[in-house]
Amino acid sequence: MNNLLGYLGPKGTYSEETALRYSADTHLKPKPYPSFEQIFAAVEKKEIPQAVIPVENSLQGSVNLTFDLFAKDRPVKIRGELLLKIRHCLMARPGQKVMQIEEVYSHPQALAQCRLYLDQNMPQAARIPASSTAEAAEFVARDKNKALIASDRTARLYSLEVLREDIQDKSPNVTRFLLIGLSDKPPTGSDKTSLLISLQDRPGSLYSALGIFARHDLNLTKIEPRPARETLGKYIFFLDIEGHRKEKKVEQALAELKKTTLFVKVLGSYPLARQTFL
Amino acid sequence: MNNLLGYLGPKGTYSEETALRYSADTHLKPKPYPSFEQIFAAVEKKEIPQAVIPVENSLQGSVNLTFDLFAKDRPVKIRGELLLKIRHCLMARPGQKVMQIEEVYSHPQALAQCRLYLDQNMPQAARIPASSTAEAAEFVARDKNKALIASDRTARLYSLEVLREDIQDKSPNVTRFLLIGLSDKPPTGSDKTSLLISLQDRPGSLYSALGIFARHDLNLTKIEPRPARETLGKYIFFLDIEGHRKEKKVEQALAELKKTTLFVKVLGSYPLARQTFL
Repeated sequence: MNNLLGYLGPKGTYSEETALRYSADTHLKPKPYPSFEQIFAAVEKKEIPQAVIPVENSLQGSVNLTFDLFAKDRPVKIRGELLLKIRHCLMARPGQKVMQIEEVYSHPQALAQCRLYLDQNMPQAARIPASSTAEAAEFVARDKNKALIASDRTARLYSLEVLREDIQDKSPNVTRFLLIGLSDKPPTGSDKTSLLISLQDRPGSLYSALGIFARHDLNLTKIEPRPARETLGKYIFFLDIEGHRKEKKVEQALAELKKTTLFVKVLGSYPLARQTFL
Repeated sequence: MNNLLGYLGPKGTYSEETALRYSADTHLKPKPYPSFEQIFAAVEKKEIPQAVIPVENSLQGSVNLTFDLFAKDRPVKIRGELLLKIRHCLMARPGQKVMQIEEVYSHPQALAQCRLYLDQNMPQAARIPASSTAEAAEFVARDKNKALIASDRTARLYSLEVLREDIQDKSPNVTRFLLIGLSDKPPTGSDKTSLLISLQDRPGSLYSALGIFARHDLNLTKIEPRPARETLGKYIFFLDIEGHRKEKKVEQALAELKKTTLFVKVLGSYPLARQTFL
């Protein structure tokens, strides 16, 4: 097995920053991929033993595409979580002023996370969603009156001048990344388990399912409905509970859950994140 | 009061299509706005008595920005729901072929909804998210080797040729719109109530809240967590229940809910959607 760590590229993204910081502790070698789908495929083909993917932000909520990849019948497991504090910077070709900017480029989620700053300080600037931070950075570097929202690492990589730091709506702005691979992690005593469940189509089925966790004293830390992709109003649910799937009370709760739901898939048990990368 | 109906413009969007179809039944006059925020502000200033805004799609899930506008302390109420069947078409300057297309433009949600078609039939084409369908249509109309995903109405408005119809991943693809205004609707006997709640930060608080609805025999049709925008892992919840806020069992459930949660905001009661616009 090689020591590669996949992430959503290109260089300069927050995913790269997370991959670099995690690699520093673990002696892994970050490798960029162009899409979440290709990261999942690379893990499945054993081209890489693990990868980091963003799953949720404290201001914007969940990254839906990540959940939709787990929703399919795929062997990928969750083996850890990592937290990164996000500091959005406004950058442009050197010598520009904030009020001169006519177009501001960024990933749609970053634009959304900086809405208040943009409303108040750059009402004149059109907000243009970009699928690639790298392409947008090259574009902004070539032209006047254009700006980019990205990490300060992007400014250094593309020789852009940082006009303002920390322009996100509210601090703390933290993104949670999952560490994925083909196996999860053994119990440490302070763990989390991620599940995907599909409920029977009858009133109270969600309430009944949550009751199983309540009776076993298992704290639910997250619930994320995603469309079942059948008809409007039908959902599957991603749940995070505290505890490891090999602990007795988690085992018992999962056994009960399997009896009363259409399906339960354990996505993995892994240690709770202890540190936030700053 | 005027008879205007606000929607997210410009012309050619699915929001316009919904506004046009609803107007045909109700003798309202559709009026486009450039953002959700401006639609909410226009309703609050009584510039328009009502508006339609997309809230959820059967393939992609919720439109987060819509929920985040309701989350604030605003007087806007929900007074109805409308369902539109979405038919995504691939269109280009006349005379192009699918395999010649190098760049395909659309709203990020539409690109996501057509992922399988694009993967299988246009692996060569870069997918470029566009914030404005109108601008993207004008751009695509000027140049070779570019295509747009939009409604067939957009093709007619911008003289583009439809290369393929119904390229969305899976049918049915239905988008639910909310009708908003400054008041909700009286009971009809077949109603829904939308709520926003904030729970106490202790294990089992969501389970307890759902238990109140279960005991009053009120069916929960939707649960949507959104970040509380404080720390990662803290959420507020949007809930839809069947029943009208003036029905006795709904009144009782809401009174109990207020005793055990940090806050409850009734966003409105309104008739269940009966028809789907095709």
